[in-house]
Amino acid sequence: MTIRSDLSPPSTRTIHELIEWLASFGETDKNGVTRLLYSAPWLEAQLAIKNKMMTTGFDTFFDDAGNLFGRLSGTDTDAPVILTGSHIDSVVNGGKYDGSYGIIASLLAASMLLSKYGRPRKTIEVVSLCEEEGSRFPITFWGSGSITGAYSDQDPSSLYDKEGISLKQAMEDAGFGVGDHPAPRRNDIDCFIELHIEQGNDLELSDKSIGIVQSIVGQRRYHIQVQGKSNHAGTTPMQNRQDAMAASAELITKLTNKAKSIDPHFVATVGKIEAKPNTPNVIAGEVIFSLDLRHPDLNMLDSYCADMKKLFEQAEAQSNVKITAEPWTNVTPVEMDSTISSLAYQITEQKRLPAQYMFSGAGHDAQMFGSAIPASLIFVPSRDGISHAPDEFTELIDLQNGIAVLSDMLYDLAY
Amino acid sequence: MTIRSDLSPPSTRTIHELIEWLASFGETDKNGVTRLLYSAPWLEAQLAIKNKMMTTGFDTFFDDAGNLFGRLSGTDTDAPVILTGSHIDSVVNGGKYDGSYGIIASLLAASMLLSKYGRPRKTIEVVSLCEEEGSRFPITFWGSGSITGAYSDQDPSSLYDKEGISLKQAMEDAGFGVGDHPAPRRNDIDCFIELHIEQGNDLELSDKSIGIVQSIVGQRRYHIQVQGKSNHAGTTPMQNRQDAMAASAELITKLTNKAKSIDPHFVATVGKIEAKPNTPNVIAGEVIFSLDLRHPDLNMLDSYCADMKKLFEQAEAQSNVKITAEPWTNVTPVEMDSTISSLAYQITEQKRLPAQYMFSGAGHDAQMFGSAIPASLIFVPSRDGISHAPDEFTELIDLQNGIAVLSDMLYDLAY
Repeated sequence: MTIRSDLSPPSTRTIHELIEWLASFGETDKNGVTRLLYSAPWLEAQLAIKNKMMTTGFDTFFDDAGNLFGRLSGTDTDAPVILTGSHIDSVVNGGKYDGSYGIIASLLAASMLLSKYGRPRKTIEVVSLCEEEGSRFPITFWGSGSITGAYSDQDPSSLYDKEGISLKQAMEDAGFGVGDHPAPRRNDIDCFIELHIEQGNDLELSDKSIGIVQSIVGQRRYHIQVQGKSNHAGTTPMQNRQDAMAASAELITKLTNKAKSIDPHFVATVGKIEAKPNTPNVIAGEVIFSLDLRHPDLNMLDSYCADMKKLFEQAEAQSNVKITAEPWTNVTPVEMDSTISSLAYQITEQKRLPAQYMFSGAGHDAQMFGSAIPASLIFVPSRDGISHAPDEFTELIDLQNGIAVLSDMLYDLAY
Repeated sequence: MTIRSDLSPPSTRTIHELIEWLASFGETDKNGVTRLLYSAPWLEAQLAIKNKMMTTGFDTFFDDAGNLFGRLSGTDTDAPVILTGSHIDSVVNGGKYDGSYGIIASLLAASMLLSKYGRPRKTIEVVSLCEEEGSRFPITFWGSGSITGAYSDQDPSSLYDKEGISLKQAMEDAGFGVGDHPAPRRNDIDCFIELHIEQGNDLELSDKSIGIVQSIVGQRRYHIQVQGKSNHAGTTPMQNRQDAMAASAELITKLTNKAKSIDPHFVATVGKIEAKPNTPNVIAGEVIFSLDLRHPDLNMLDSYCADMKKLFEQAEAQSNVKITAEPWTNVTPVEMDSTISSLAYQITEQKRLPAQYMFSGAGHDAQMFGSAIPASLIFVPSRDGISHAPDEFTELIDLQNGIAVLSDMLYDLAY
């Protein structure tokens, strides 16, 4: 392993200009970004990046799902590809860094390597993945999933956006989806490296510049329905009630406290709640709430869910309600490649950048790749942990440090 | 006190026919009743009752708010009026008994007395009150409140229904509101007696035929806002959260448990809840929920509300949230007249009808009258405690018993 750290990182001005340039595609009047899959600003952004790749010396191509690749062909034509990048799509009125930073960073890192060291031994490809957020269609990781083949069985004509446009139609309208996207799996990729903003504030709180993700959490989501009996709020004594709201409140407290007691990395969130009839003077006959559970260890998730069932049984007996829990998301935790992670850590030590191993509580393209090939996910700090909002921000020095680490990783792996 | 109990009650067939007849005005396709204040079915119902009163021998008149009176003039023209009745309006898709039963019962009781004993000594008036439910306009007890003068300062042009029609406009469209409704307070009423379905299941559970209400509970309602901080459900550790939903759940449990611990008659209901942004994978930044508190003793309500403030302070400190409680209803408990209640109880004993003293957890016109003059509220059982729904039901024998008790009360008070 030979790491070169004598590459000058790009100027912060260059990084700033590129971040602002990319944010101009889909910029909202609230200083945020809305760049939904296959929309006009999405297509403009992909074509603009393609153009920039070409002028920087990359060979470019789109796959049939709309993933954009910029290729620096290696001298060893038999060697598999080192792939790096992130997603170009955004949430509605999201920030300028989520996804975008990983694309810009990959582009800058590969360009610097090309101009200083010439063609790599192994081919490097920078990828601007078409979709990760699930903001337009009810599917996430459409870009990385199409590359790894995870969506080979997914029929894009069965998924619709809010306007009733199918994923298939939207692909075709943007000039993709002509036929080979259902099986675009590539077998020529050696590994995937993604640089991304943290979207949390662990790095900020621990005053670290770089986070090296060891694993991306597993995630389970449930719709929990508590069925009681609607009744008059004035004439029904407390002891005769089948109050779905009171029962739900106790459950939410117990579910939340259980997460706290298991492990500092366990998170449980009830973000959505609906009561029926939702009237101040009527006892709620039904409450439905969401439960989002995340932890990097599958066994911990299993253990929580087993205990959850016991809590439901207790609540049914105590509160005279009926509880049903419908699972609708079940994502297995994904380990990042330990060899590449070690490389990243070594690089941060050489550069004297304070770094830490961590896990990712949010989903990322690296997890789709990580299920199929060695993958690595590197974080830079997010100010106040804010993301998916116009206030999303990362200091230029942190953006610069991330690019410096990525450059050295690519150098080590491809040169 | 001389109670005559040799009056034959009306046949159950007559009662049944009148209940169904009145329910035909505003009958819904779900076998319920929608008869909102000043609507077409409301006006039809009032005019039909007026006609029935006239054919039965009553003098009839409307006041300017649309309350309909049927008068049996007493021989003692200086004596104040014995008033009895209930409200003609309903909730949306309500039942056939709420309000309607009290009007029909008063009409039947007074008719029987007239036909058997002739003119009373004191004038008896049967009243079909224009409004109690607050289902169309954001005001309740518009009928009884207009009679007692409680709404003398209320500007009907400032209240609007969902269609944007003002209360003033609706009154005028129905032929009322020509001018004297703001001060229609009558000073010639001796007492008010209301017969009503229980709308709870205390009588059913204790196997009683008649409930004699000692007091109508006081009621306080709050909008409680819990302000936390919206954040990513995956990347924000439990200990760093300002989770408005988790804090609200704990509060709801504590507020509910406090009601249970104070007194068996204390009820606390959280019937309505709204979370923001109400998304499964985002920590709720804000939750607003309703709190409805009722108890017959003002001191207990005061004590609860003082403790509630302490709970809020604790929650603010523990959960790092900000809590504001906005009161929007504050109804003082109202005592029913003990002399008339004793009379009712004596009558049930004479008739060997199982009866009990109780309080009313729901609001009734009797509470508006009770704040101004002696008032009495008599309950008959509601099957399963169901009310404000098409399933609302009371056995004919119970309806008959209620009318028998009311007849004897009117006889004692007016003859």
